[in-house]
Amino acid sequence: MKIHDIAGFPNPFRVRIVLAEKGLASQIEFVNVDLPAAEHKQSAFLAKNPTGTVPVLELDDGTYISECTAITEYLDNLDGNSTLTGKTPREKAMIHMMQKRAESELIDAIGIYFHHATPGLGPQLQAYKSPEWEGRQEWGQRHRDRAVQGMRYFDEVLKGRPYVAGEQFSMADTTVLGGLLFAGFAQIAVPPECTALLEWKARMYERPSVKNPA
Amino acid sequence: MKIHDIAGFPNPFRVRIVLAEKGLASQIEFVNVDLPAAEHKQSAFLAKNPTGTVPVLELDDGTYISECTAITEYLDNLDGNSTLTGKTPREKAMIHMMQKRAESELIDAIGIYFHHATPGLGPQLQAYKSPEWEGRQEWGQRHRDRAVQGMRYFDEVLKGRPYVAGEQFSMADTTVLGGLLFAGFAQIAVPPECTALLEWKARMYERPSVKNPA
Repeated sequence: MKIHDIAGFPNPFRVRIVLAEKGLASQIEFVNVDLPAAEHKQSAFLAKNPTGTVPVLELDDGTYISECTAITEYLDNLDGNSTLTGKTPREKAMIHMMQKRAESELIDAIGIYFHHATPGLGPQLQAYKSPEWEGRQEWGQRHRDRAVQGMRYFDEVLKGRPYVAGEQFSMADTTVLGGLLFAGFAQIAVPPECTALLEWKARMYERPSVKNPA
Repeated sequence: MKIHDIAGFPNPFRVRIVLAEKGLASQIEFVNVDLPAAEHKQSAFLAKNPTGTVPVLELDDGTYISECTAITEYLDNLDGNSTLTGKTPREKAMIHMMQKRAESELIDAIGIYFHHATPGLGPQLQAYKSPEWEGRQEWGQRHRDRAVQGMRYFDEVLKGRPYVAGEQFSMADTTVLGGLLFAGFAQIAVPPECTALLEWKARMYERPSVKNPA
C-alpha cells in the first residue's frame, strides 16, 4: 500500500497515527505531495482524488481511497478488530459523531481562517484556495472564533471522559489531534482555561502512535 | 427511539431513507424541529446537539446522536447486517469516501450558496446562518458553481456503476439524494447533459425507501 501525503501536516497526521496504532507503518510506502506548490490541485493528483486533498491511500490493485474517515475505516477493519472505529452500534455512532464535530468545528473552521485570513501556505496554493475576494478577512476571522469555540466544546467533553468519544482512544481522538496541530500552524492558541483539553493533549502526546506516528 | 427533525428537508431525508431501508420506521417517534424559526439554534436544542443541526437521534436511555453518518452507522448496525455502511474494509472505505464527497461537494456547497447568496429559510434563521457581511454573494455564488461541478463529478461516477459507492445501494446514495433534494430547494438544476446522474435519480425514486421514506 502507498500513502500520498506530506509528513507533519494535519490530515496526514490523523492517518499516520492510525497506521502506528494498527502496526501497519512498515507495510506502507509514502509518496510526498508538494502542498505549497499546489501539487494536489493539478490533474495528475486529481485523477487520484478529485477533491484535491491529502492523504490518499493507494491499494495494491490501484484503487485510491481518500478522506481520513474512509482510510481509517479501511485500515482499522483489516484485522477484524476495529478498535479505532468502534465495534458496537453505539460505539460506531459516538465515534463518527465526535469525529465529524472535530472536522467541522476544528479542522474546517481553522482551514477557512488559515486559507482566507492569512497567507496560508503561500501564493501558489492560495490561487486555488482563496483568490482575492471581498470579505475574505471577515469570513476567515469568523471561523477563527468558531475554532476557539470548538476548543471550548471539546474541553467540556473531556471534563467528563478520558477520550473524545468515550472510554477508549478512537478515530475521534485522531481528528481532534489533527485539529490542534492545524491550530498550531495557524497560530490559534488553545485558551489556557481549557485545562481538560490541554491535559488530554499532553496525555495523547505520551502515546507512542502520537509521539511517533508513521 | 426518537428522531428530532423536520420532514422533507435534506439531512432528515437521508436518515428517513435509512429508517425505511432498515424497516425501523415504526420504532421511531418523530419530534418536529421548527427550522425556519431557528429552533435548532436555541439552547434547548443545542443541549441535544451543540452543532445545532438536524436530525438528532435520541436513544431510549436519553443519549443523543447527531450527524447523519453517525446515525446511519447506528441504525445500520443494529441488526448485525450493515448493508448501508459496508461489511468489508473496502466497502466501508468506498462508502465513507463517496458519502463524504457528497457532503462536501453537494450538501455543504449548496448550503453555503443557499444561506449566503439567497434569503435561505428566512430572516429568523438567517441571523444565525449569515448575518449581513461583505462578500456573502461572491462566496455563495462560488459555491453554487462548486455544487454544479459536484453534480458533474457524480454523473461521471454513475456512468461506471449502478450506485454511488459501487454495486449496491448504500449510505453514499442517501447523501447524494439529500444533496439533490437540497439543490431543488436552492433552485440549482442538474445540468441536462448529466444523464447518468438523472437516470440514477429516477431509478432511486422508484425505490420504496426513497419514494416513501419514514
